[in-house]
Amino acid sequence: MGRKAAIIGGGVIGGGWAARFLLNGWDVAVFDPDPEAERKIDAVLANARRSLPGLYERALPPEGKLSYHTELAAAVVGATWVQESVPERLDIKHKVLAQIMAAAPETAVLGSSTSGFKPSELNEKGARAVVAHPFNPVYLLPLIELVGDAAACEKAAQILREIGMYPLLVRKEIDAHIADRFLEAVWREALWLVKDGIATTEEIDQAIRMGFGLRWAQMGLFETYRIAGGEAGMRHFLAQFGPCLTWPWTKLMDVPDFTDELVDLIAGQSDAQSGHRSIRELERLRDDNLVGIMRALKRTGSGAGGVITAHEAMLPRRATGPDGLPVTVEMQVPTTFVDYNGHMNEAPYLEVSARASDRFMEMIGADAAYIAGGLSYFTAENHVRYFAEIDIGAQIMVTTQALGGDGRKLHLLNKIWAGGDTPAATVETLLLHVDLSTRRVMAPTGVVAERAAAFVSDHADHPKPDRLVLNQPRA
Amino acid sequence: MGRKAAIIGGGVIGGGWAARFLLNGWDVAVFDPDPEAERKIDAVLANARRSLPGLYERALPPEGKLSYHTELAAAVVGATWVQESVPERLDIKHKVLAQIMAAAPETAVLGSSTSGFKPSELNEKGARAVVAHPFNPVYLLPLIELVGDAAACEKAAQILREIGMYPLLVRKEIDAHIADRFLEAVWREALWLVKDGIATTEEIDQAIRMGFGLRWAQMGLFETYRIAGGEAGMRHFLAQFGPCLTWPWTKLMDVPDFTDELVDLIAGQSDAQSGHRSIRELERLRDDNLVGIMRALKRTGSGAGGVITAHEAMLPRRATGPDGLPVTVEMQVPTTFVDYNGHMNEAPYLEVSARASDRFMEMIGADAAYIAGGLSYFTAENHVRYFAEIDIGAQIMVTTQALGGDGRKLHLLNKIWAGGDTPAATVETLLLHVDLSTRRVMAPTGVVAERAAAFVSDHADHPKPDRLVLNQPRA
Repeated sequence: MGRKAAIIGGGVIGGGWAARFLLNGWDVAVFDPDPEAERKIDAVLANARRSLPGLYERALPPEGKLSYHTELAAAVVGATWVQESVPERLDIKHKVLAQIMAAAPETAVLGSSTSGFKPSELNEKGARAVVAHPFNPVYLLPLIELVGDAAACEKAAQILREIGMYPLLVRKEIDAHIADRFLEAVWREALWLVKDGIATTEEIDQAIRMGFGLRWAQMGLFETYRIAGGEAGMRHFLAQFGPCLTWPWTKLMDVPDFTDELVDLIAGQSDAQSGHRSIRELERLRDDNLVGIMRALKRTGSGAGGVITAHEAMLPRRATGPDGLPVTVEMQVPTTFVDYNGHMNEAPYLEVSARASDRFMEMIGADAAYIAGGLSYFTAENHVRYFAEIDIGAQIMVTTQALGGDGRKLHLLNKIWAGGDTPAATVETLLLHVDLSTRRVMAPTGVVAERAAAFVSDHADHPKPDRLVLNQPRA
Repeated sequence: MGRKAAIIGGGVIGGGWAARFLLNGWDVAVFDPDPEAERKIDAVLANARRSLPGLYERALPPEGKLSYHTELAAAVVGATWVQESVPERLDIKHKVLAQIMAAAPETAVLGSSTSGFKPSELNEKGARAVVAHPFNPVYLLPLIELVGDAAACEKAAQILREIGMYPLLVRKEIDAHIADRFLEAVWREALWLVKDGIATTEEIDQAIRMGFGLRWAQMGLFETYRIAGGEAGMRHFLAQFGPCLTWPWTKLMDVPDFTDELVDLIAGQSDAQSGHRSIRELERLRDDNLVGIMRALKRTGSGAGGVITAHEAMLPRRATGPDGLPVTVEMQVPTTFVDYNGHMNEAPYLEVSARASDRFMEMIGADAAYIAGGLSYFTAENHVRYFAEIDIGAQIMVTTQALGGDGRKLHLLNKIWAGGDTPAATVETLLLHVDLSTRRVMAPTGVVAERAAAFVSDHADHPKPDRLVLNQPRA
């Protein structure tokens, strides 16, 4: 595209803006008098390169050119977008905006990252800035609150969409825009709780991320409450919980009067927002999102994900399956496994099989400690055969047959059962034992070699499938 | 386990408790005078069965027995846990708790779902209830705020962990416990914004779920701000943003004095909570979680997921790959694809291949509209060969070769490239054309048949891999 963004102020926020533009193919010119700015922005960029492009199933454009400047004027020349992210003091903002006005193209969007100031305050000295307020990490979170001149905001919104952001046009200027008003309300309440010894910072974080934080990541406040109202929807919720607002739950109690007019306004807006979906549809969407989010958190052990893993470890394992072979996975097909054909997509079969192989590795002693010691198995080949459709919510089980385990190779058959006398799918898999430091294949020794061989021997008399394609003698 | 939970009050919250216990193997006895209670709880159970078990890679225990009772005493007899979820009026709570006390075993945990009342209020008439405050949907969200007698709470906490919940022991009783104080603060602020015409309910929801909601799902408030403080951490954040609290950002301004003592308290608690990880580690954990959450939301198109999909549609596609064949996927390996061996796990190769096949289907006209019309392709077999490791962050590309496309079968080779002259992996895949109404295999006709045949013809002269195992003539 060859467009240029000038980043004035290179802290965490300015660095995030730089990364967002750069990874979307823009040239980026940074002005920050801090001698550490380059190092700090490089760190933000390393994080952004690692994470942002992985959100897409297409390639982002090639990165633009990044340059650092010791003069503000040199940074802003020829820029299509100039973003000011200097400290949150109005006198500093005024000074920097004046310098930008003097040197930037008249056509440039002039955005301010201010959390609190209104455009009318920013522009008191004749600037033409709009508020373009981002959220950390700017390279991942899409929200930008846009406040100011309508035409300038519309132009800015178009560009923001092109770099993957979500411009929220704020109807009237107001101190702290929208989101920071909520953050400030919660922050204030949290300080009281800590000060009064009700909860520690960690307990407060748990109270958020184990509960309503999971809802807010996907639906926010009003749509969540619309569902909480049950079949009667938003109006019922308001009737039920409206009065709570006058209770002494928080330190501060200046509450809008709960008039019929306000109820109508909120219920009407909620209908316009979500009324095209029934409460049941909203519930299922919410639950599908919660399952997806919580399974994502399970990967890292964060928050609710850690709770699931701890609970899972308490659940008993079944020893053997319908074919008398060891059970290596038992689970219910999550909503996240289903595709446009209304059944379990082809890919999660391999995810399930990979878990079965992991479990089999544990059973022969190639467990987390063994891997931490520098030895592991890599998968060389998989052959997946799909015999029957598997529905969302189905109970599935995997049994694992050791077909061969001598030397460097481990040859397994993972059968996926979903009820019935025959497997719904089989995954024939060939693993190679490796040294993780050299990434080279090598034969296992000791317990792992012995146990693998013992399983192969134990399973030798079990029937084999009609067709094996891996690890076969060459014709 | 054979343990029994009595659910007193069967609304959305009582139904959620019933589902949570039942799906964890407990017998559940419900008392609710509402003649609609059974229908309402059945609806909650249907949602719960569809979602909760899918969080686990092990099977939950067999469901317990569910019974409905017209007498409270019959429901609570022999119960290990009695949960009160009646309307939020203290006189009603007192009456119901007295009935429970008269009939429940002395050893039973007596939990109240109250959002606002303190245990001392609940127990004014001699009951021994603890607050066990859940969050909707109770069958998915782990948080339970426990308040009350220490020994009773400890006993309750043990059981809650066994049914997959996260008990948060609240140190001192206080109106509305912890989380609802935040919810109430945000709710109050939101009402002002709607009333004053600053934002609609939908805009407020967007301001939450496109930004800080994504952070709160995983880390909460203080750990997020610890990162925002950058390398200097929590103390720096407090120094920078402490003063903002006295600004006129919200309607109400009773703020705790920002003394050195309060700063030390918060910074010290934050160190205890998160100090074992560097800011850089926390940033990467946050970003990995954000990528996981946002990719989960992308599946359903909710919130930030919809923004990514819209942006993705603007990105240009590359036409042909290093082998001159059509490019069907281009992406960067997301952090969520990586496993304990430090490289892309075996399963996401098939996820990538499935996307490539989807794209190839689009190219021959078997697109979303075609599928909505009742025809599609199902995958019958996959053969995955792994030739080279692929690292997190690697740019990958898939090219697709049509090996055969006559009649009912579509035989493709998806080559996964990660730089270099040869593929890092190949997926040989065999698809069958199906009628979605009968789920039977049938040959495509018209454009799809023609385009598939044309690709096969176009690709006939391209070299084929050394070894194909699917769709081969039987020996």
